[in-house]
Amino acid sequence: MSKVKLGAVPLVYPIPIVLVGSNVNGRANFVEVGDCAVMGIDPALVTISLSATHHTTSGIDECRAFSINLPSTQLLSRADYCGIVSGKDVDKSRLFTVFEGEQTGAPMIQECPVGLECRVQEVVHIKHRRIFIAEVLECYVSELFVETVDGKQRIADLSKLDPIIYALDNRYYRIGDAIGIGYREGICHEDS
Amino acid sequence: MSKVKLGAVPLVYPIPIVLVGSNVNGRANFVEVGDCAVMGIDPALVTISLSATHHTTSGIDECRAFSINLPSTQLLSRADYCGIVSGKDVDKSRLFTVFEGEQTGAPMIQECPVGLECRVQEVVHIKHRRIFIAEVLECYVSELFVETVDGKQRIADLSKLDPIIYALDNRYYRIGDAIGIGYREGICHEDS
Repeated sequence: MSKVKLGAVPLVYPIPIVLVGSNVNGRANFVEVGDCAVMGIDPALVTISLSATHHTTSGIDECRAFSINLPSTQLLSRADYCGIVSGKDVDKSRLFTVFEGEQTGAPMIQECPVGLECRVQEVVHIKHRRIFIAEVLECYVSELFVETVDGKQRIADLSKLDPIIYALDNRYYRIGDAIGIGYREGICHEDS
Repeated sequence: MSKVKLGAVPLVYPIPIVLVGSNVNGRANFVEVGDCAVMGIDPALVTISLSATHHTTSGIDECRAFSINLPSTQLLSRADYCGIVSGKDVDKSRLFTVFEGEQTGAPMIQECPVGLECRVQEVVHIKHRRIFIAEVLECYVSELFVETVDGKQRIADLSKLDPIIYALDNRYYRIGDAIGIGYREGICHEDS
């Protein structure tokens, strides 16, 4: 099959939708972000990328801490709204019940099943982008989404967490069916 | 609802599954990666994180270039296999039809609907992790997944691209239904 060249398009998909929280001038603010990923398990690292002019960015620059909150699809309209309006104009903290991360005071969203309290380790500036690489200090999970299996606590699967997913076609999606298990599906190729 | 603290867990989800390609000692190699994201649209930036000891990492260090290939679910077993075995032991290039990115020579996978040719801009070292932030030079899309709307070429939606999705519960998932449009779902809150 031949390939079509679309130019310089960063077409990684799907994109996780998260709400990044920071304290800006003493007030909690949240912005919808898709530029977010795990960067490692041990040490527990994540990254987010923001525009330098975002209201949230100045808060992270000031506090060197932020939160990543993972909304479920029932929060879709509020999450999208956090991407439409700026905290410079609107107090977005009133959209949610806010609690503080215990180690940094970063504002976190009670209604999100999962929230990560993060401390900035590195900042990369590329043109107007600010890429923050951060250590996860604590992972807060709503008890409804924690299961105990063989005496160990673990997070529920994605069908229950019901995340908001995005793509560069500007559409939101929900998660589909489970289709396999990591490090097991490829075993059939071992002797190929 | 009260929160349970799970410790330092980088629980961002869902995770996009990609195959990162690099030339290592003159041979194409591919590794399955979930630590990958868009970092900006203009400039077109992406990031990946690898262990310093990965075979692919030495290739990227040498060439300062790599590819990101996005497999569909029909490639699940081959993608998973690329995460099980090392290119130090196995020639993984024989799993796919390989073509070269025009600007860097980075090896790319014909069978993947989308491939990104990337040039490294920044490298961040945190313990054993190597975080590569790269510019996307070109986006190659299989013509089956390119639609022409109002005279403009655009990528098909996620239901057609059928990506492999992963989460830290070590399960693979497929994409679900479209549930909304970006910057539109939140309008109802505008006057709230």
